[in-house]
Formats: sequence, structure tokens, C-alpha cells
Amino acid sequence: MSYIFSFHSPVEAFFGFDSIEKIKELMAPYKTIGIVSGRTSLEATGMKAFLEAELADRSLHFFSEVEENPSINTIIRGGAFMRSARCEAVIAVGGGSPLDAAKSIAVFATNNDSFYELLAKKDMPNKPLPVLAVPTTCGTGSEMNAYSIITDAEKTDKINFSKPCMFPKWAVLDPGLLKTLNERTLLATVFDAFTHSMEGLISLRANPFSDMCAMTSMELILATLSAVEDLKDERALVNFMYASSLAGTVILHTGTTLLHSLGYYLTNNKKIHHGTANAMLLPCFMEMLREKGVQKFNVIPSLFEKHRFDINLWLERLGAEPLSSVLTMDEKPVMAAYALSKPNMKSTPFEADADYVVKKLV
Amino acid sequence: MSYIFSFHSPVEAFFGFDSIEKIKELMAPYKTIGIVSGRTSLEATGMKAFLEAELADRSLHFFSEVEENPSINTIIRGGAFMRSARCEAVIAVGGGSPLDAAKSIAVFATNNDSFYELLAKKDMPNKPLPVLAVPTTCGTGSEMNAYSIITDAEKTDKINFSKPCMFPKWAVLDPGLLKTLNERTLLATVFDAFTHSMEGLISLRANPFSDMCAMTSMELILATLSAVEDLKDERALVNFMYASSLAGTVILHTGTTLLHSLGYYLTNNKKIHHGTANAMLLPCFMEMLREKGVQKFNVIPSLFEKHRFDINLWLERLGAEPLSSVLTMDEKPVMAAYALSKPNMKSTPFEADADYVVKKLV
Ligand SMILES: [Fe+2]
Ligand SMILES: [Fe+2]
Repeated sequence: MSYIFSFHSPVEAFFGFDSIEKIKELMAPYKTIGIVSGRTSLEATGMKAFLEAELADRSLHFFSEVEENPSINTIIRGGAFMRSARCEAVIAVGGGSPLDAAKSIAVFATNNDSFYELLAKKDMPNKPLPVLAVPTTCGTGSEMNAYSIITDAEKTDKINFSKPCMFPKWAVLDPGLLKTLNERTLLATVFDAFTHSMEGLISLRANPFSDMCAMTSMELILATLSAVEDLKDERALVNFMYASSLAGTVILHTGTTLLHSLGYYLTNNKKIHHGTANAMLLPCFMEMLREKGVQKFNVIPSLFEKHRFDINLWLERLGAEPLSSVLTMDEKPVMAAYALSKPNMKSTPFEADADYVVKKLV
Repeated sequence: MSYIFSFHSPVEAFFGFDSIEKIKELMAPYKTIGIVSGRTSLEATGMKAFLEAELADRSLHFFSEVEENPSINTIIRGGAFMRSARCEAVIAVGGGSPLDAAKSIAVFATNNDSFYELLAKKDMPNKPLPVLAVPTTCGTGSEMNAYSIITDAEKTDKINFSKPCMFPKWAVLDPGLLKTLNERTLLATVFDAFTHSMEGLISLRANPFSDMCAMTSMELILATLSAVEDLKDERALVNFMYASSLAGTVILHTGTTLLHSLGYYLTNNKKIHHGTANAMLLPCFMEMLREKGVQKFNVIPSLFEKHRFDINLWLERLGAEPLSSVLTMDEKPVMAAYALSKPNMKSTPFEADADYVVKKLV
């Protein structure tokens, strides 16, 4: 068989200020609805009051217990919660963690099985509940794909519980929901989106469709960063949110690469925000791509130049510390070995050993 | 509510030479399969022998009676055929007509109702059979959207029987299937795809996602036309087929505009190939866009210049006659009135009356 790639973007996404007003129409067929969120953003963004008003004639059941890096235990409890409330659909509100969690909870709502039993299967015995995803950050792009990153607390490891049936049915992308983010968190999530697109571009799993989405999303982010003074300007929020969803479609096709697995180490061990970690690693990862002669990387420096993008200025604005002050000399080999052991290496367009990665971690 | 747009590309598409080898895997769950095609292309492309060999262990039922511009009668007969054979899935093979027909036939296979009864409903009483679309031309993009243009032979009118449940589940895009097309038909279908993207760009229903697909598809078509001597060069076939599917995603979002409704008249009354008709109308439609000051049109002349694209040379290669020798002075107002009465005007970015259109039809 020759080289064959597949492409699609199956989530029906509604984009624009006030697009949350679509929720009522999309939820019309459902009387009993479960709402999955973290502990604070549902109220902070005003979404709790909004949903209670818009869906006043439905039976709403709030599961607002999703932690950062949701655990298997949370997923199982969430599934049981939906089952006992007889929910017919799930609305997921929040950043990557609640969105990822909701996709798995929708599976366990209709499948009363053990986590590892279902993890081993491709097709779920019962169809999951339909999910409507409402992101309140603009980084993970989780609303556009079927990924669901769940933490096994006992093994302290992350598991990608992702099945073909786990795409949200709809996404409502309302840039107005980004207004309550503080500037640093907003910027960190923008960098998460940027790395999704850049890693997607150079991924071994890239295809012409993901390249199109990646280039469009990177151009939009860099043009916006260079054009606006206030990152929370409405025009900027629109662009960041749209670019982040496109980047979610990118990684649906490409996965992420070594940069993300290095970033996981910083998040797991140094409690650095996922997006900030990715931004901190951008300069050294770009140096690897340049040195290894990855051809598709060649467009990136010219893109940076075109938009007069200086990564160091933005790292300062992010409040990111230099890698060298975060990592001791002893930690670097541990971090490199961890990152190289992840499946991300399958899509990374070069080979590397721990020594090489350690040398580049400056 | 503010300006909200929606975007998605729900069909899972497999692209590449020999991607038809995916069909066996995709059809694995189905024992009894209906195959919808026109009268000749199934054998001409070798797809009949291929399917009989690949799916030798299934029960295959061939409905090879779809005419150009399929009629309601064909759809109803096709539905009854699938029902009596107890087909569980449909494979559609061919150009726009068989693909459009198959999407409707899949609906009538599970719904034994009258055409106009179902036309009036948004949701179908029963779920249609899953459809796998295998285009053998590279123009209509029908494999990527839910449109199904059906002709009411009594009223001599075209009806868009399109429902949210009518997206093909999969598309297999194999450029190898284009090899049996003659050069003129290939080129005509390429121009159909080009007009889908150009009309999509300037459509009032355009959005950033459809714009991205439209620009990418136009660039690819023009770059390929300017680069290759032999249109049936493998590299050209790859690009034409991919660009045409992207253009199918464009019109899923934007619909088509006045150019297409003018083209329908030439096809209905002068038996001119749909793609050739669109190509013939391109110069005068571009002149309308320029004269009416449609802002988004501004990128088109520079795109043409960048790729040294001379429409007149290509019209010659297409064997297209000048509009003035095809249309009498009396016919032009009839054609204009017909085109202006079509729903396409809702997405056309300017107002026009019949006098104006007649003046431009040169
Ligand atoms: Fe990420
Ligand atoms: Fe067309």
C-alpha cells in the first residue's frame, strides 16, 4: 500500500462572541443533562448562572469535581454520577482537564466497566453520552479531538484514554469566556496551542490537511501577538480561540512530539503550567530541529521574522524562569530519559539519545 | 446574538494512491453491501472487478443505474433495491451524480416514505445506511458534504435533498481512479472544483475555516496547472483530487453563488458539462465581482498573476465555445432570470437584476 493519510474534523464547532447562546438549541432533545467542570471556572466565568437560566426547564446535574490532571478515580465517579442521575447528555465546561475528563465520563456513564478493561478495547460496548464541549481557555484544543489524558495516581503515569467514539458532538467556542483568565494564564494557553501547531507541522504523522491547519493557526497567533498591546483585546481573544481550536484539529492528526513529553516532566515534577513549560522548551526544541536538519522546520524561522517574534520577550512576559535555574544537572538526564520513553518519539522527526537531549536543555 | 459561524469536516477521508485498499477494512462490519454507480464508470475504472475480489466473502448488490442528473424515480427505486436486498451499507462509486444519488438512496433504503414527505422533514424517521464514497472524478466534492442534487423530471427542476444525517461516513480518495478520465473531462472537473473554492471565498456564508480550505485548494489547482505539461501526471492527479475534496468542504459551509446557477442553465439547456459551463462563466463572473467592488475578490487577480494563469488558454484547451456563440440574444434574459431566481443569490455578495447580468454575459 502506498502512503495513505486520513483527514477530518468531525466536531461541529460554533464560533463567535455569544455562541454560548447556541447551547439551548443544541440541548433541545435532552431533558436530563450532566455538567462536568473543575471546581471554580464554572462560577468564575458565569457559566453556572447562564446554564441554570438557559436550561431552567431541564434537570441539570453538576459534577464540578474535576481536578487538574484528572484521575481514573474521578472518571469512574463521574460515570457513576451520570448513570445514577440518568443523564442523556454531557456539557463539559473548562480547560483541558474538565474537557478531557468529560469525554471519558461520557463513556463510563453508559459502560459500567473497569477503566483498564475499556482501555484495552477499541469499540465501547455501549455508545457514550453525547458531549458538548465549552472551552474556557484557548490552549488545549481538547474540544476538537477525542483525546482524554487521564492520570493513574498509583502509577503516577498519564494514560491517553482515546476512542473513535469519543469526539465531542459539538463545541461552542465563545471568546467571551476567555475574559476572566489572567494575562499570564491566557498567554500560557496560547503557547500551548502554538506548540501543538508547530509540533504538528514537523510531526512524522503530518499530512496536507494538518499542515494547512497548523500554518493558519501559527500565522494567526504570531500576527496577533505582534499586533496587539492588550492580549485581552476582543480581536485578540477571537484569534487566540480560533487558532487554538485549529491546533486541536492539528494534533488530532499528528499527535505531539518530544517537546510535549519534555514539558510533561516540568509539569509533573516542577508544577509548571503545561503551556508555560512548552514555551520554555521552544528555543531548545527549535535548536534540535535546526541541528538535525528537519526540512519542514525551515518555514518557522522565517515565520518568526515575518511577525518580528522574539521568544525571549514573551518568556519574560510569561514569567518563565530559564531552564537552567529550574533543572539541576542531575535532573536533566532523568527528564530526558522520561521524555524519550514516551510514545511521542514515534512522531518526532529525528532520533536522539539522552546525552543529546541533555546537552540541548539549556 | 453576534456573528456566529459553524465549521467542521465530518467525513473521514482516506487519501492516496491505492487508498481503495482501505475499503475492505472499512466494510469489515457489513455482510451485505449495496454498490451505487452510473452505467459505465464502475467497469471502466476497474472498480467492479476490484470490489468483487476484495469483498468476495460478502453479498454484493449492484445498483448501476444512476443517470446524469439522477431523478426522484431513480432514488426511490434505489432505496427499494437496497431494502429488498437487506443491505447494511452502501458504497458509492463515480462522479457527482452517483455520489449524490447514493446519499439519498441510503436514506430511502431505511425509510419507505415518499420523496416530498421526507424532503419536508429535517430529521429522518430512521437512520440512513452508512455510505462510503469513492469519487472517480475530481470536481464535485460530493464525497465531503451532505448535498444530494436530485432532478424532478416532471417539473424539470433540481432539488437539493440534503439532511444533517446524509454525510458519507467515509470517503476513499484514490487519484489512481482519475487515470481513465479523458483530459477534457478531467480539466472540466478541475474547473468545477476551482469555482467551488472561488465562489466559496466570496460567498456571504464564507467563514475563516472555509476561506482556509478555499485558498489552499485554489493555490494547489493553479500551481499544478502552471507546473505540469501532462494533466494526467501522477503528481497532478494527486493535487487535483485533494483540492477538489477541500473544495467540497468549502461549499459544505458556503454553498455556491450566481456563477453556479448560471452554469445550471447551460447544462440544462445546452448540454454543456457542468465544469465546462462554470469555466466558461468564470471571466464574466469575475468582471461582476470586480465591478461590484466585492472586497474579498481582490486576492483572485493576484493569485492568477502569481501562477501566470490565463483563463483563455485553458478555455481553449477545454474546447469551450465563447458564450456569445452558445447563447442567442433572446436566451440571455431567460438564463439571467432563471439564475437570479435560484437560492444561490442568498450567498452571492452583490445584488443584480436581469439587465445587469445580460450585459455581462459576453
Ligand atoms: Fe498541549
Ligand atoms: Fe459544481
